[in-house]
Amino acid sequence: MITAEIVTIGDEIISGHLTDTNSKAIALMLNEAGFLVQRIISVGDNEEQIMGAITENKYNVNVNVKIFSGGLGPTHDDRTKDIACKAFRSQLICDNDVLQNIQNIFQQRNLELTDRNREQAMVPHNCKVLMNETGTAPGLFFLKDNTLYIFLPAVPFEMLHLMKTKVMPLLLDTFGEQNHFHVSDFVFSGIGESFLVDLLKEKIHFEFETSEIAFLPSPGMIIMRQTLNYSTVEDAEKVFQSIDHELNKNVYEFYLGRNINNIAALLQKTFIEKKIMLSVAESCTGGYLSHLITSNAGSSAWFSGGWITYSNAMKINQLGVSKTIIEEQGAVSEQVVSQMALGAKEKAQSDYSVAISGIAGPEGGTSEKPVGTVWIAVATPKGDVLQQKFSFGNSPREVIIKRSAIASMLMLVKVLKEN
Amino acid sequence: MITAEIVTIGDEIISGHLTDTNSKAIALMLNEAGFLVQRIISVGDNEEQIMGAITENKYNVNVNVKIFSGGLGPTHDDRTKDIACKAFRSQLICDNDVLQNIQNIFQQRNLELTDRNREQAMVPHNCKVLMNETGTAPGLFFLKDNTLYIFLPAVPFEMLHLMKTKVMPLLLDTFGEQNHFHVSDFVFSGIGESFLVDLLKEKIHFEFETSEIAFLPSPGMIIMRQTLNYSTVEDAEKVFQSIDHELNKNVYEFYLGRNINNIAALLQKTFIEKKIMLSVAESCTGGYLSHLITSNAGSSAWFSGGWITYSNAMKINQLGVSKTIIEEQGAVSEQVVSQMALGAKEKAQSDYSVAISGIAGPEGGTSEKPVGTVWIAVATPKGDVLQQKFSFGNSPREVIIKRSAIASMLMLVKVLKEN
Repeated sequence: MITAEIVTIGDEIISGHLTDTNSKAIALMLNEAGFLVQRIISVGDNEEQIMGAITENKYNVNVNVKIFSGGLGPTHDDRTKDIACKAFRSQLICDNDVLQNIQNIFQQRNLELTDRNREQAMVPHNCKVLMNETGTAPGLFFLKDNTLYIFLPAVPFEMLHLMKTKVMPLLLDTFGEQNHFHVSDFVFSGIGESFLVDLLKEKIHFEFETSEIAFLPSPGMIIMRQTLNYSTVEDAEKVFQSIDHELNKNVYEFYLGRNINNIAALLQKTFIEKKIMLSVAESCTGGYLSHLITSNAGSSAWFSGGWITYSNAMKINQLGVSKTIIEEQGAVSEQVVSQMALGAKEKAQSDYSVAISGIAGPEGGTSEKPVGTVWIAVATPKGDVLQQKFSFGNSPREVIIKRSAIASMLMLVKVLKEN
Repeated sequence: MITAEIVTIGDEIISGHLTDTNSKAIALMLNEAGFLVQRIISVGDNEEQIMGAITENKYNVNVNVKIFSGGLGPTHDDRTKDIACKAFRSQLICDNDVLQNIQNIFQQRNLELTDRNREQAMVPHNCKVLMNETGTAPGLFFLKDNTLYIFLPAVPFEMLHLMKTKVMPLLLDTFGEQNHFHVSDFVFSGIGESFLVDLLKEKIHFEFETSEIAFLPSPGMIIMRQTLNYSTVEDAEKVFQSIDHELNKNVYEFYLGRNINNIAALLQKTFIEKKIMLSVAESCTGGYLSHLITSNAGSSAWFSGGWITYSNAMKINQLGVSKTIIEEQGAVSEQVVSQMALGAKEKAQSDYSVAISGIAGPEGGTSEKPVGTVWIAVATPKGDVLQQKFSFGNSPREVIIKRSAIASMLMLVKVLKEN
C-alpha cells in the first residue's frame, strides 16, 4: 500500500490559535483514493523544525509521499521555499509561466505588482512546478530517494485546488489506481460502548479484533465505523448490507441504522415521508434542538417552529403550563414538561411535539435535582404524552445541552418506530 | 524555554474523518502558560506508529514534555496503554482508587460493571496515575530521561478536565512558573481586514510587522490578537490597556472592545447591569441565536426566551404578524421582521427584543431576494423598532445562519451603546 505523510506549517497551528483543517482535508482526499496516511505533523515557522519534517524519514521507514502545506507566502515568516532549497540543494530561478500567472492575478484585482510578489515566481531549479491558477504561490514537487515531496500553500481553497487538479492526478500517474477505502457507519443508541461490543459479539458473532472496525462514541450515540479496502464499491456494499441486515434483525433495540450520524436528517426523512409536522418547546437546551433541526436544508417542510420558554412566565403565558404545578413540582418535572409538549403541539397545530426542561448548570442544582437532571416529553398525534427522565451527571453545561437535544431526538425516533 | 510535543492518536484523525481539536486545545493551554509547543503529531491506532511517537525523540533533540491523547478507551482499537507498557517496561497492576472511581461512575449511571470496564483500572506499575473524575480512563504520567510523558483520553471534556486539574499543576510543579504568553483580543466590526490595518497604522501608529500581532477574521468581526511573553500580567496589562485606550479614542466607530469574542457574554454583562430582559423571534436562524445566548451560564437572568416562528402560521398566530403583510411583502421583509420584534417584546414582556427573518438557502432565493438576504429588527423599551437589511451572499447555509445571529447581536450592542 502506498504510504503518505502530511506536514502542516505555521506558528498559529502549534500555538493553538488556529484549528488545522488543511491536514484533515488532505488526509480525506488521500484516504478516499486508497493511499494510507501514516502520520500528520504540524510544525511552526522554524527552520530546524521544517528541515526536520522534510528530512527525518531518513531515520524512519520511508514513506512514498510527503505533502507539505504552508510557508509559501510572500512575507518574512514564510520560509518553506528557502528551506526546501537547502534540503534539495536547489538554486532559485525565475519561472516565466508563474510570473505571468502572478501578473494576471494582480491585473484582475487592479493592483500594482510589488517586488515582493515578483519574488514568488522564483522557484527551485530542480523541482516541477504545480501551477496555482487561484493564487500567487505555486506548488512545488521534488522526487528524491523514491519519495515524492509536494509543497502547497496554506490558503485552504488554493491548497484544495492544487490537490484536486495537480496532486491527485500526479499520484495516480505515479502509483496507478489504488484499491479504495470504503466506509460505512452503523449507528447505535441507548447502550454503552463496552456493552455494545459484548452484545454484538454474542448476537451476530462479529469479528472486532480488526483494524477495519472503530467505535466512535458521540453524545447519546455510538458510531461503529467499518473501513474496507476493496477494489469496487459493489464488493464493499455487499459486506455493509449484510451487516446492516444482521443488525436490524438481531440488535433492533439499539440499532438506529446506517450512515445516520445526523439524527435530525433521519427525522426529516421520516416526517416528510409521513407528511407530518413537528414543533418543540425548549427550556434548558435554549434553542439548540431547533438549531440542530433547522441546520438541515428543507427543514421548513416538517418543522413548524418552537418556543424557548426560558422563564417560568413564558412557560405559563405561552404554553399554558399551570403556575400551581410549577410552584409545587418545579419547572424541571414530569408534569411541566408534559404540559409544555401538549401546549406546543396545540398552539403550533403540529402532529408531534417535543419538550425539554432540565438543569444545564453549573448553578441551579439541588440534592434532589442535581445538575444534569433533564425531563423530556414527546406528545403524539393521538394526544398521548411520553415522558422520560435523564441524568447527564455533573457534565459541563454545553455537554448537558448537547446530550439533552440528542436524547430528545432519539426519543422521537423511538416513538415513531413504535407508532 | 520548556519545550513540548503533542501526539494525538486515532485512525479517524489520519483518515481525515475527524478534525483533531484536542491538539489545538492542548497547544493553547501550554502556550498560554508559557511552554513552547514544537510539534504536533497525529498517528493512527497502530503499534509501530504509536511506539515511534513515544520513542523517536531519541533521534531528535529531547523535548521536555510529551502529551499524548487517545487510545485509552475500553475497546480493541484502544492500544495506547499496552504500547506505553512496552515502551516503559511496565506491568499492569490494578489501581484501587481508579477502580473505585469507575464503580462510582457506573453506579451513578445505574449500569452494571463489566470485565471490560474493570480492565480500565489496570495501570502500568511504574507510572503516576492522573485520576479522571469525569470518565473511566485515567491519565498516565511517566518520567524517563528527563522527559515527562503524559497520556490522556481522547474524549474532549475528559482531556480538558485532566489538563486543567492535573497536567498543568504537574508542569508548574516540575518546571516552575514560566514567563507567560499574555494574550489580548481587540475586536472590530463593520470594516474589512486590510482597511482596518491601514486605519490603525494611520490613527494610532501601531507597529504591525511583529509576530506579536495576528489578525483573525471571523464572521462579522475581525479579531486583532496580541501575544506578549512578559513575566508579569501587570506588565502585559499595561500595554494592552494603553492600546485599548487608544482604540476607544481613535477608532471608536469600528472598535467593539477587548476580549469580547463572545458577544452574547458582552450582552449578558450589559443586560444584567442594567437589569433589563431580552426576548427573541427567530425565523431563518432557527434557534441558533437563542443557543448562543443560552450557552452562557447565568443567561436566565436576562433572557426571557423566544419564538422560533419557522412557518408563517407561527408568525401570524404566535407573534401577531399581519397575514396580509406576509402575503404582500413576503416573510423576509422589513415590516414582517418589525412586527415579529414588537410581538415578541409584548408577549414576553421584555425590555428589548430581536427578530430575524431571512433566506438561509440553499433553496428559496429569488432574483429580488437572493439566498443570504436577511432582515433584522431590534425593538427598544420605548417601543421604537430599528431594522436593517443584510446580504450575506450565496454562502453555505450554516454560514448564513451564523452570520445572521452574530449580526443581530452586534446590532443590539450598537443600539444599547446609543441608548
